[in-house]
Amino acid sequence: MTSSPNRREFLRRSAAAGAALWPAPLAGAPRLPAARAVRGERLTARLEALSRLGATPEGGVSRTAGSDADLAARELFSGWLEEAGLRVRTDLAGNLIGRREGSESSLAPLVTGSHLDSVPHGGNFDGMVGSVAALEAAQSFSESGETLRHPLEVVAFFNEENGKTGSRALAGEVAPEEMDLPVYGGFTLGEALARVGGAPDRIGEAALASGDLAGYLELHIEQGPILDAGGIEIGVVEGIVGIRRFRVAVSGFANHGGTTAMAIRRDALVTAGRFIAAVHDETLARPGRQVATVGRIEARPGAPNVIPGEVELSLEIRDLRMETIEAHYGRLRRVGQEIAERNGTTIRFEGYYLSRAAPCAPLVMDLVEGAARSLGLSALRMPSGAGHDAQSLAGLAPIGMIFVPSRDGISHSPREFTSAAAITNGARVLAESLLRLDRSLAAPGARG
Amino acid sequence: MTSSPNRREFLRRSAAAGAALWPAPLAGAPRLPAARAVRGERLTARLEALSRLGATPEGGVSRTAGSDADLAARELFSGWLEEAGLRVRTDLAGNLIGRREGSESSLAPLVTGSHLDSVPHGGNFDGMVGSVAALEAAQSFSESGETLRHPLEVVAFFNEENGKTGSRALAGEVAPEEMDLPVYGGFTLGEALARVGGAPDRIGEAALASGDLAGYLELHIEQGPILDAGGIEIGVVEGIVGIRRFRVAVSGFANHGGTTAMAIRRDALVTAGRFIAAVHDETLARPGRQVATVGRIEARPGAPNVIPGEVELSLEIRDLRMETIEAHYGRLRRVGQEIAERNGTTIRFEGYYLSRAAPCAPLVMDLVEGAARSLGLSALRMPSGAGHDAQSLAGLAPIGMIFVPSRDGISHSPREFTSAAAITNGARVLAESLLRLDRSLAAPGARG
Repeated sequence: MTSSPNRREFLRRSAAAGAALWPAPLAGAPRLPAARAVRGERLTARLEALSRLGATPEGGVSRTAGSDADLAARELFSGWLEEAGLRVRTDLAGNLIGRREGSESSLAPLVTGSHLDSVPHGGNFDGMVGSVAALEAAQSFSESGETLRHPLEVVAFFNEENGKTGSRALAGEVAPEEMDLPVYGGFTLGEALARVGGAPDRIGEAALASGDLAGYLELHIEQGPILDAGGIEIGVVEGIVGIRRFRVAVSGFANHGGTTAMAIRRDALVTAGRFIAAVHDETLARPGRQVATVGRIEARPGAPNVIPGEVELSLEIRDLRMETIEAHYGRLRRVGQEIAERNGTTIRFEGYYLSRAAPCAPLVMDLVEGAARSLGLSALRMPSGAGHDAQSLAGLAPIGMIFVPSRDGISHSPREFTSAAAITNGARVLAESLLRLDRSLAAPGARG
Repeated sequence: MTSSPNRREFLRRSAAAGAALWPAPLAGAPRLPAARAVRGERLTARLEALSRLGATPEGGVSRTAGSDADLAARELFSGWLEEAGLRVRTDLAGNLIGRREGSESSLAPLVTGSHLDSVPHGGNFDGMVGSVAALEAAQSFSESGETLRHPLEVVAFFNEENGKTGSRALAGEVAPEEMDLPVYGGFTLGEALARVGGAPDRIGEAALASGDLAGYLELHIEQGPILDAGGIEIGVVEGIVGIRRFRVAVSGFANHGGTTAMAIRRDALVTAGRFIAAVHDETLARPGRQVATVGRIEARPGAPNVIPGEVELSLEIRDLRMETIEAHYGRLRRVGQEIAERNGTTIRFEGYYLSRAAPCAPLVMDLVEGAARSLGLSALRMPSGAGHDAQSLAGLAPIGMIFVPSRDGISHSPREFTSAAAITNGARVLAESLLRLDRSLAAPGARG
């Protein structure tokens, strides 16, 4: 389970990742100087350098927001932004931003980026790939003499993994109380934000208005297996799925496991077991791409010789459409109630978390898909099942996301892996898409 | 859920519990002076007095072994033993014993009793009923001038609820290391034993040899619902069930609950859910009285948005016959493996606890059943699903147990309730059975 072979494989492949793994241009394809100027070997060398900051013995990184490793990664990244000729600043919400001016000073910036923080004991690709590729795209424009109409901003958002704090602050969604929440590393979120140069007391002022951004495009690893399993090079993200989470409480009657005959038990865990199986079966059986997960369970009193009287479990449902989530929830709730009743138990559902689905702009999807095809890359439209900074910005500007394959779909793990060639593909599609977006967006604040 | 109505009901019924609730003798039934001399009102008054020691606000008692409340209960009980003309001692294992000599000095003692300790936040009947009824039987013999061949010993065993320490010590089953185990109340088991006058350093010397006991008979509340549901007055216990406990580990693959399509999940909790339902269904569907319980479950990593990769759960199987337990385990294991395989997961079983079934002696069962019938009481042969001190002694002498109904089968709870009339019935059957046993046991160490 150690991923040091992962890292060796990454380095081995990285050596060949520049021009060598890059497919020859298709006959008749247009000349693409910016995408051509994306340098895979520089990109992969930067990823390798980042992976040393907060490195874990298992071959991944622990680089939670505001940790020493996060500070080091931001400093390194900041140097690269300057090296690429970008003007660097950190905003009130701790977002690290490098800006390249455009030819039309009245236009709002086109923004691209991702994040440098990781989950504890995470991998070397989540967030890093999109951050380094955004920088590489901007640098490729400068090196190939490409002028954009819009200013271009490369952003490494603050604390994506533990609450999307930086991007949510731009949407005005961060409540001041959040600053008091404990985070990894033994400090509060506010202290973590202050450590990276943000202003916890002024987090509300980080909010942008509609029109402050021209558009947002983010490259990310898929964190799922679809592209890898299908041998597809580029995922054109249709949107970030909505999420509803419920606490499900099953009540039966706790009794002695030795003296209570099977026929008269009111076993809350038997109801819960049947419900968990039904959640899986019902969700699989329906057409569509909804997913439903029971990830947490607690049975009380929890002794081997006592029939559980109370079980609490979590239920999470995700889909690109909120209506699908609601309809599926209604279905699972009905099924749960039928099961509970048959077992002489009761079941209650209480919603406690909602994340609204964030659709990508059709214009951006079309541009990304066109860019991929023009580079000779296979592409597939797909939802993002995971949350991303892009989602926070969906109310401010047209957003889009580009996915590259995750081997075996593994993520948030040292075993997370995406090849250097696949990352270079993604960076080239990102650069080409940004150019097309720059040309297509009509006016400040235009929506796709 | 408060049981103060329980206590009020108990007191109300107790007032009428003496001769009034006692059925008239059947026409042609033999004269039964000893059973007649059992005084229900004295018995219930003693139970009421005991229920004040360690009383909880919920209407039950917390009287764990070695606690101040336990010491007070033992002191009170000790006074009653002396009042009844018994010679009182505490043995090395902390068992409180009152002895009445018999007419044949060469015979080993006939023993009857139960325990005075309770689980934390337990009820007012478990253990107390059998202890007080044993005393009442001995006292009734003295008051009705009944001479027994065997010496009669009334025992309140030390620490039944948290390990059957006192009775297991008589069987030589208590390891010296157990004395270091922490128990309720902030001391070790050895310290608790010393508090009641036992000798933790000499616990091994408490062991009896085969032949040291003539027989053992215990009255207890059923702790299950069978007698109450069937309106049956006396349970003739066929034996104490054997128990096997297993740790069951299900392994799948932890993955992102948003990005992993339903069809490719290897969800350990879905396997566990199907297995829990199958344990219930398979155990219910088989003929016989075996029970199987999953009481404990843990899913890892345990986050609402992560597909569980590992689940550990407990499986307990009980039956009167060890062979039935083994066969049923084999069946559940096979079913579990089929389920695990269909879900792309694995399942492992590891046994960690075994308590061998302790059959009651057929002679004792026959005598108890005969005694119940002679008193005009309905009786049913049944296994004991719970463990009891009697079980520890099954290797030393013929054992038997008498059950009286538990309302709604509730036990180890302040809601535990058995009526004064039912307890008086049980005490009379106990007294009559002891008399019959005294006559029937042929020689020291005889087996039924």
